[in-house]
Amino acid sequence: MKILFCCLLILLSVVTVQPASSQTKTAAKAKTAYFCDPCGNDCDKIAFDKPGKCPHCGMTLTLQDVATHEKNMNLKRLKVLFYLQDGVEVLDFAGPMEVFSYAGFDVAVVSKTKDPIVAQGVLKIIPQYSINDAPAADILAFFGGSAWNAVKEPSVIKWVQDAPKPQYYFSVCTGAFILGKAGMLDGLTVTTFHESIEGLQHDVPKAKVLSNVRFVDNGKVITTAGISAGIDGALHLVEKIRGRDVAVQIAKYMEYDKWVPAQGLVMKPVAATP
Amino acid sequence: MKILFCCLLILLSVVTVQPASSQTKTAAKAKTAYFCDPCGNDCDKIAFDKPGKCPHCGMTLTLQDVATHEKNMNLKRLKVLFYLQDGVEVLDFAGPMEVFSYAGFDVAVVSKTKDPIVAQGVLKIIPQYSINDAPAADILAFFGGSAWNAVKEPSVIKWVQDAPKPQYYFSVCTGAFILGKAGMLDGLTVTTFHESIEGLQHDVPKAKVLSNVRFVDNGKVITTAGISAGIDGALHLVEKIRGRDVAVQIAKYMEYDKWVPAQGLVMKPVAATP
Repeated sequence: MKILFCCLLILLSVVTVQPASSQTKTAAKAKTAYFCDPCGNDCDKIAFDKPGKCPHCGMTLTLQDVATHEKNMNLKRLKVLFYLQDGVEVLDFAGPMEVFSYAGFDVAVVSKTKDPIVAQGVLKIIPQYSINDAPAADILAFFGGSAWNAVKEPSVIKWVQDAPKPQYYFSVCTGAFILGKAGMLDGLTVTTFHESIEGLQHDVPKAKVLSNVRFVDNGKVITTAGISAGIDGALHLVEKIRGRDVAVQIAKYMEYDKWVPAQGLVMKPVAATP
Repeated sequence: MKILFCCLLILLSVVTVQPASSQTKTAAKAKTAYFCDPCGNDCDKIAFDKPGKCPHCGMTLTLQDVATHEKNMNLKRLKVLFYLQDGVEVLDFAGPMEVFSYAGFDVAVVSKTKDPIVAQGVLKIIPQYSINDAPAADILAFFGGSAWNAVKEPSVIKWVQDAPKPQYYFSVCTGAFILGKAGMLDGLTVTTFHESIEGLQHDVPKAKVLSNVRFVDNGKVITTAGISAGIDGALHLVEKIRGRDVAVQIAKYMEYDKWVPAQGLVMKPVAATP
């Protein structure tokens, strides 16, 4: 139903955009159209000829340059794979999922199998991929909450080790134990959930585990503190990739006005765009 | 596998607790045991005789009075129904779901049907209930992101209107449009997503819609601003029901140290425990 609704809207958008682009006498108007703020759904691509609210997502329609908008829509979208294990903490992954979606990244969920998992004993989720058919990722992300269910699975750890190397490894809370078990944290300075600092240091003796830090950025490996700290770590990674202006815009859109850019430890400078 | 694992742990917990409770000469020890910090899973109930990490959720085990712990575990758990529509915003519901779970509330997901829905075009979720078999709720919660998919459905709005009256109605972001369509906001002061203030005021003329406020508490109806503001609104509702100490403890556990209690508008005082 939703797909049909989207198709109708996309068809409508073509109808609404064509007249504008054909108005040679009103070039200024011809180059602009109204688009909804990014919601991660298909309606992000729909051009409207009048201001108002997007009938699909309810977001406000804003006047934008059509060529720029289409260029942004056609940018290569970074693939972000969220590895979610049974018992994963809901906010651990939801904060970064919200941030990365608004950053225009292509977010997908992978688990050991495609069988449904239950997050925090409440939220039943169907993964898009299993570790057997997951595509290559630009960002490979791991989260806390029963992280043991991934750490104790040799097939999952082998997948983490053998998967095509992403541009970035990202962990929230005790998701760091999964990266640690796979050997991705050896020699690095990292952090995790405040009650698991000693545990991670014990399990990953070759890493230096810090407490009282919102996130630690080693360049290609970003680990964050517990649960809500994942939002800050995700905004930091977006800032690394797309620049502070975009990260600030996303934080403002999410009404996460409490965000303090760079409120973490950056071990070494990284170019804004990899 | 997880259920079997939990059963084994519960069986183990009985074995570990019995000797303690039978040690008449060491009454102090007999009255205490180690429990994991609340994670919303079955392991919250498991008593361990040694400190360390919970082998199920990985949380740190803390020494607690067994009788008090069992009393807390047996308290009537407030039922919180999260109504999630197709296209719902991930962080809109995940923040409150995290908070209410740690508050010990019994959280469940309901949608128009039990067919899978896709949150924010990314997260595929299987609802536990449909509007045809949903149980009575103590807290009935609604969230933004394609809220239109609920507002436009007469059967959903009728369910909101006809459902047994909960103790509290709770909305995040444009979830307020659903409560508004059902007439639950008439005569109240409310808020919503920052880009939808005018839209809600237009759709619900009998309500007074405020901007620039994190949440508005009318006693039985709490509406919050957009996306991340739901975390603050949920912590406020927990504070109303279980007291500030519990809300502060949950915020600290979630590492949401940015939380500022009462950073919202309370229209009238409400007893700490309804």
